[in-house]
Amino acid sequence: MKILAFDTSSTALSVAILEDDQLLADTVLTIKKSHSSSLLPAIDFLMRSVHLSPQDLDRLVVAQGPGSYTGLRVAAATAKTLAYTLAIELVGVSSLQALVPADTVGLVIPIIDARRQYVYVGFYENGKAKQPDTYIALTDLLEKLKDIAQLTFVGEVEAFRSQIERHFPQAKIIETLPSAFEIGKLGRKLQPVDVHAFVPNYLKKVEAEENWLKTHKESGLSYVKRV
Amino acid sequence: MKILAFDTSSTALSVAILEDDQLLADTVLTIKKSHSSSLLPAIDFLMRSVHLSPQDLDRLVVAQGPGSYTGLRVAAATAKTLAYTLAIELVGVSSLQALVPADTVGLVIPIIDARRQYVYVGFYENGKAKQPDTYIALTDLLEKLKDIAQLTFVGEVEAFRSQIERHFPQAKIIETLPSAFEIGKLGRKLQPVDVHAFVPNYLKKVEAEENWLKTHKESGLSYVKRV
Repeated sequence: MKILAFDTSSTALSVAILEDDQLLADTVLTIKKSHSSSLLPAIDFLMRSVHLSPQDLDRLVVAQGPGSYTGLRVAAATAKTLAYTLAIELVGVSSLQALVPADTVGLVIPIIDARRQYVYVGFYENGKAKQPDTYIALTDLLEKLKDIAQLTFVGEVEAFRSQIERHFPQAKIIETLPSAFEIGKLGRKLQPVDVHAFVPNYLKKVEAEENWLKTHKESGLSYVKRV
Repeated sequence: MKILAFDTSSTALSVAILEDDQLLADTVLTIKKSHSSSLLPAIDFLMRSVHLSPQDLDRLVVAQGPGSYTGLRVAAATAKTLAYTLAIELVGVSSLQALVPADTVGLVIPIIDARRQYVYVGFYENGKAKQPDTYIALTDLLEKLKDIAQLTFVGEVEAFRSQIERHFPQAKIIETLPSAFEIGKLGRKLQPVDVHAFVPNYLKKVEAEENWLKTHKESGLSYVKRV
């Protein structure tokens, strides 16, 4: 099975092409420029490097969220368009799980910075989610984890390193980049989803919707319908 | 410091661009085609993706060997040409060390398949070589390691997995691909070498030279001079 996997949920862009669980080619770009202009050239470079054309693909695996709204919309739009036009399978995988390195012992906590001291966070052990991914204040997260012995924090950890160290002097804190290869391997074993029904997993309302709700809570109106 | 790092010593091709110890972009291609035709397009794609031109580079870090003869010649020729024409620093790093994952506990044994049950092999602990890289029969390697408690075999391990497991049922055996990002980080701290004097670290004579020496041992002639 030939798989194209990608993740545009954070500032890094990650793309991989797999043959079953073997990597054929991958790339990671960490520059802070629009993923919408980098994603297709990266896919094109990798496909040409391994002498494949889009018609050779069997499945798309995409990091579905949480993460950057714009990044998630780029991922979803590109994945749905490719899956529809090529008539191939589509699978969504957690973008937090894309940050979890293989072979890590104990509970692994992948973090994506959601700004203002909030984080998107997952709880993984042996490659499996112990709890659903969530959106939470960093202080609440650290409180919640306080009785757990062996912790490894990964992903966008640099901004939170000193706070984590203060609560968990024994914890491992490793900055990791998303791996499209890892989500490609995960997505290979999952059931494909309905292409037209596929939506990003934001985990949090956009700020405009949150602000609107503050002043319209009583009205019973829907933000999406109203706007 | 902007660093371009690459490794063409095995069947995989790995290229990375770093700003100090931060990754800007990388790619790995595992297809079995000539690295001489893939290396420059990969460098060009990454440079363009991060909006750099060759003149922006400060240093080249290249996997110097051991490994595939052709791959090492491609790496050395490309690295020397770039370093000379751009007048930038050149550093060589072990291609075995490029296979060692960060944060591995105990002795790590990176392996490159040298065919006919021989391997190129290194001995690394906490990111440092405990012994020089060597060319050795697999059976001799396994004998040599027999009293060591915590072993992790990495790199091109699949062909040797059952033999290793028989000798070391407790050992970790993890197939890894070379990481130009890792050798870029290593090479950042090393002293640059003389560009014109840079040669691959083959560790083993080419087969033609070995065969020639068998029949010319007594003659005192040099293979290189003679041929």
